[in-house]
Amino acid sequence: MFEKLNSLDDLLLHEVQDIYHAEKQLVKALPDVAEQATSPDLKSALEEHLKQTKVHVNRLERIFEMLGQEPKATKCKAMKGILDEGEDTFTEKGSPETLDAAIIMSAQKVEHYEIAAYGSLARWADKLGRQDVKQILGQTLDEEKTADQKLTELAKAGLNQRSASKQAEKQFAE
Amino acid sequence: MFEKLNSLDDLLLHEVQDIYHAEKQLVKALPDVAEQATSPDLKSALEEHLKQTKVHVNRLERIFEMLGQEPKATKCKAMKGILDEGEDTFTEKGSPETLDAAIIMSAQKVEHYEIAAYGSLARWADKLGRQDVKQILGQTLDEEKTADQKLTELAKAGLNQRSASKQAEKQFAE
Repeated sequence: MFEKLNSLDDLLLHEVQDIYHAEKQLVKALPDVAEQATSPDLKSALEEHLKQTKVHVNRLERIFEMLGQEPKATKCKAMKGILDEGEDTFTEKGSPETLDAAIIMSAQKVEHYEIAAYGSLARWADKLGRQDVKQILGQTLDEEKTADQKLTELAKAGLNQRSASKQAEKQFAE
Repeated sequence: MFEKLNSLDDLLLHEVQDIYHAEKQLVKALPDVAEQATSPDLKSALEEHLKQTKVHVNRLERIFEMLGQEPKATKCKAMKGILDEGEDTFTEKGSPETLDAAIIMSAQKVEHYEIAAYGSLARWADKLGRQDVKQILGQTLDEEKTADQKLTELAKAGLNQRSASKQAEKQFAE
């Protein structure tokens, strides 16, 4: 669809179309991921992130408008790979705590993909003098970073809880 | 190959096999990416990262040994998606500066995938009391973060250079 990527404007639009597809894939995938999660805290963090992801989709639609373009999603192979890989892992049989740890890892891979994408997009918008576009992209970027930190906290809490329950089992057996 | 992911040890091994495949894919892909790059600084950063990636592969082989396992790579769909998507973009026709910006974005997506993966792996190794494994994973994690920062600097320098040359063209035209 792009004959040539001659300018940063072309590339910005190209990549907005990519992340638009990525976010839309995520809106479809997250309800199933949240359903697979066992820990109530993880489940609610994923549900919260679904709401946020819908906002990110809407923001991208505003950006298309600001760029004078129709919203268009071009297939984001990377997000598809990340989501497929995550699903392959956390739908295996296993203990709930282990599968929750796998879900967190997969969700952090998603967040990091988005951090890389929005980071570049915000930088390009800035260089193109589109502070209006940059501001919106930066807002989403900050939210993805916060979501990633939240997942790290959940991972640590989950691992500590696991140790505590193992300890209790051990004491009970003695 | 995993009947069940019953423990964090199972998951650690599962994901070491995933990132082992990811790093090996990267070793194959990076020479072509470096060849596509126009900026000499970007080219040499990619060549440097290829050397580092080979070290990361060797470190994973040491980890397999430490875990008493044979090295085994299970297909990393995420890295495949990221690399395919990058290649689709920066092999399009376009101006050298724009394609370099696309290469940097793609390389940062790779780095961020690895940051998410090694971050979880190091956390799990720590929790499993495998400080020896954690130390090696942490070393690679730090190098991926440094590589990502270096790419951000290259992106900024590339964008500034573009502005400077546009400015010069404009002055020349006046």
